[in-house]
Amino acid sequence: MKRYLVTVAYDGTNFFGWQKQNGFRTVQEELESALSGLFHVETPCFGASRTDRGVHALCQKAVFDAETTIPAEKIPLAIIKYLPADISVLDCREAADGFNPRFGVKQKTYRYTIYNADFRDPMKRNYTEFVKDKLDVEKMQKAAKSFLGEHDFKGFCSAHTSAKTTVRTIYDISVAKTGENEISIYVTGNGFLYNMVRIIAGTLIFVGQGKINPEDMAEIIESRDRARAGKTAGPEGLCLIDAQF
Amino acid sequence: MKRYLVTVAYDGTNFFGWQKQNGFRTVQEELESALSGLFHVETPCFGASRTDRGVHALCQKAVFDAETTIPAEKIPLAIIKYLPADISVLDCREAADGFNPRFGVKQKTYRYTIYNADFRDPMKRNYTEFVKDKLDVEKMQKAAKSFLGEHDFKGFCSAHTSAKTTVRTIYDISVAKTGENEISIYVTGNGFLYNMVRIIAGTLIFVGQGKINPEDMAEIIESRDRARAGKTAGPEGLCLIDAQF
Repeated sequence: MKRYLVTVAYDGTNFFGWQKQNGFRTVQEELESALSGLFHVETPCFGASRTDRGVHALCQKAVFDAETTIPAEKIPLAIIKYLPADISVLDCREAADGFNPRFGVKQKTYRYTIYNADFRDPMKRNYTEFVKDKLDVEKMQKAAKSFLGEHDFKGFCSAHTSAKTTVRTIYDISVAKTGENEISIYVTGNGFLYNMVRIIAGTLIFVGQGKINPEDMAEIIESRDRARAGKTAGPEGLCLIDAQF
Repeated sequence: MKRYLVTVAYDGTNFFGWQKQNGFRTVQEELESALSGLFHVETPCFGASRTDRGVHALCQKAVFDAETTIPAEKIPLAIIKYLPADISVLDCREAADGFNPRFGVKQKTYRYTIYNADFRDPMKRNYTEFVKDKLDVEKMQKAAKSFLGEHDFKGFCSAHTSAKTTVRTIYDISVAKTGENEISIYVTGNGFLYNMVRIIAGTLIFVGQGKINPEDMAEIIESRDRARAGKTAGPEGLCLIDAQF
């Protein structure tokens, strides 16, 4: 029996998130079902990030244990026929016994994408947050800098968090025009509270709309007051793009 | 009663194409239903291009007649609440009485997008053609030039075409890397036969795979033999991006 680490990409649109829930279609369950099909035995898997309903991933990490003669690097190809079209396994390698990506992850990067135009682009509706007001990217860039470093992000998580501490470190954050009418926020940190990236995105959208001054951002974070941050931006715009161990 | 010209974008994934068909969900029918909701009277509309099932548009053009006090430029905003999420009306202006975009169109531009990687990107599955073999873009660019100008495209249309003549003129065609793992073909012409862009794309994919030599392209076109061209590439990769009158 060996432990394997896979990199998984998925379109979150038609999933109730990563984590298994009775009666709902989840990525974890579909992946377990594909693994079980491939190995002819029930094969549980465990992911690094519990992405929410509608949230996407280019680089989710998950582990499973299997007894197989298929070399690790051939597993992504072998599993294709057991997977639905909205999940791809991009990579597979052997991992240490007992390695758990949920606790082993050192940093994660999320991308949050905004579609900023007068009218929605129907082809981007599931992958971006639509914002009609013309956003001021420079102001958003300025405000984003205040998130860098270690902070108590109590004001940037949903009330029903189960985290023991709300202190997290942001290693990197940037706001960039990534296409015509498209603005992306990239955030890298040692961990994220429940809805934290979506609240950061929603707050930066408020900055771009002129509802929050970039100069007030540091104080809003220090206030630890959820009411002073912006709205929780929708799940569609969010994508897990990297996880490092 | 005035005639109006609208620019329409749609995600073709969940449509059986543009044109109305009893019992199937089509863009024309959904747009007519939205127009009828807005104007409180049955409002037929007519498009410039009859895009197929699964084909997308950023710039379909359509006309309708209406008696309304809403200024033309306000119609895109007013119609939003009657439209499904996979259709947007981007622009509306008055048109000459009797103007028919199907016959008035002077040139159209299509984009065909290929996702060229070892594994599918689930988020791009409805918007690109997945090709696993590494494509040679330079060869594709070289071969593409042979399509320029006036040709009899009998070998590049589906057998069941109803067109009177199979002669068409290609004004412009280019092949470019448009993203990591993404190759796009842009084709502008005075008109396109049934499946013509998808067969051109499929043939250029064969060139990129080394199955057809770029040097043979001109002769393959002149042969007017469908069997010598490549496969018809899937509808997902195709998007109508411009129509000029």
